[in-house]
Amino acid sequence: MQIAVVNDKIIPFEELDPVYLDRGTFFGDGVYEVIRSYNGKIFALEDHLDRFSRSLAEIRITGVDIDDVRQRVLKAFESAKLADARIYFHITRGSAPRDHKWSDDIKPNFFLTVTELPDNRGSKLNGVAVITYPDLRWKRCDIKSLNLLPNVLARQEAAQKGAREAILVNEAGFITEGSGSAFFAIFGKTIQTAPLQDNILPSITRKYVLQAASNAGLGILQKHLTPAEAEQADELFIAVTTQDIVPVVKFDDKVIGDGRPGSVTKQLEEAFLEFTK
Amino acid sequence: MQIAVVNDKIIPFEELDPVYLDRGTFFGDGVYEVIRSYNGKIFALEDHLDRFSRSLAEIRITGVDIDDVRQRVLKAFESAKLADARIYFHITRGSAPRDHKWSDDIKPNFFLTVTELPDNRGSKLNGVAVITYPDLRWKRCDIKSLNLLPNVLARQEAAQKGAREAILVNEAGFITEGSGSAFFAIFGKTIQTAPLQDNILPSITRKYVLQAASNAGLGILQKHLTPAEAEQADELFIAVTTQDIVPVVKFDDKVIGDGRPGSVTKQLEEAFLEFTK
Repeated sequence: MQIAVVNDKIIPFEELDPVYLDRGTFFGDGVYEVIRSYNGKIFALEDHLDRFSRSLAEIRITGVDIDDVRQRVLKAFESAKLADARIYFHITRGSAPRDHKWSDDIKPNFFLTVTELPDNRGSKLNGVAVITYPDLRWKRCDIKSLNLLPNVLARQEAAQKGAREAILVNEAGFITEGSGSAFFAIFGKTIQTAPLQDNILPSITRKYVLQAASNAGLGILQKHLTPAEAEQADELFIAVTTQDIVPVVKFDDKVIGDGRPGSVTKQLEEAFLEFTK
Repeated sequence: MQIAVVNDKIIPFEELDPVYLDRGTFFGDGVYEVIRSYNGKIFALEDHLDRFSRSLAEIRITGVDIDDVRQRVLKAFESAKLADARIYFHITRGSAPRDHKWSDDIKPNFFLTVTELPDNRGSKLNGVAVITYPDLRWKRCDIKSLNLLPNVLARQEAAQKGAREAILVNEAGFITEGSGSAFFAIFGKTIQTAPLQDNILPSITRKYVLQAASNAGLGILQKHLTPAEAEQADELFIAVTTQDIVPVVKFDDKVIGDGRPGSVTKQLEEAFLEFTK
């Protein structure tokens, strides 16, 4: 008889809830998005849906109707009635007895949560610390997949060192991005960030930050930088959907600028907020 | 109100079954093993438990009693009463609202299945085809983690090309291993396979294959090889827990040897089977 064990409980295999056979768990075989609302208004929904659609296509999950995803997001957001909400959703390839290969008739699983965004005014006011950590991720970080173990290990290391984020450094010695954020350095009136390649997630927040920088008349340099160069920046910040722009005032053990969020970062924060209204 | 959506159903977040908040799904934050039995006898259980223990430690999942895992495996195997069983189990870091960081008090989730092994006598008799595919995996393939999306994509590509396995080739142009197997080439009386490094899973089957080769008086060369070199081999085979040694008779479009399983591979298969009795 084929059987399963869930924690302490033995169950006939045939009676197992399909959630236990989700390829999301067996393989991380799925993709996700995180969206937020500002004061009751979802920000950049279409950008996120476009990226989600691309992620699905890249890992060959088919049969998902993006209009349907949009409707689920909107309906859930409306039901939750949260002004500043964090909307997380993923689609996995579906549930099936574990096998690397999949069948064409497998039906994707959808999961979504709407939760309250934690207040991050303290981080914005005082800035945060970051550490550097080796970029151990796979070679297709442009796909927002559920294979996030290296990100998790990096972030935990940061937390244990009292830092908000881990800034990932590849084998060539260049910064790619944060474990869950884009990374930016400001030198004078120019902002610098890594170019979009296979090793970088095409961050939506990054896109709007660059737009804000352009609107503010700042120069933009899309070029990899090293930790040694980042330490010499006038200002640093990370950008992430749930918190938009967060000033970085400490990079490993090096204090950035005068240890307070800088004026260009503040200017970008204000310009960014205009997009969210 | 915080809410969740599971497929079409809206649920208050607080009423969500913890299985939906498994970090195994959110992040692939867990490790696994696959063990098999031969004719009612589990093979190399202690090797698998040792490797599992190491995987847990490497990703810092603590509080797991390996004796308890052993007991669950044995009890499940006994309950299933399958002579040739495939035992899969994983432990994830646990269930919690999604956050890259984890709390020290999180409780790991255990999951196991005992299923019937498919008959692979045909593959052993006739050999299988393999294709090459880029090794897109993360940099710690020595950890048997649930981050397997690159392996899945590689294997599916192989299946669609009528091949059994995808042999992964890294950026330097060297073969690392199969998407779910170790890879071996035979040149004369020497067997060659990649050395154990961070980019290779320390395969238990590999260990016993090398022991079998040594017992049979074959030379052993642990050195990376290129696809061009593999094509020139006298014999090729893959090694995987569920099927042990499987002869490879086609490598991309190149027929290996005379297109039939070779004599040294057969000799190794017989020597390997001695360990399983």
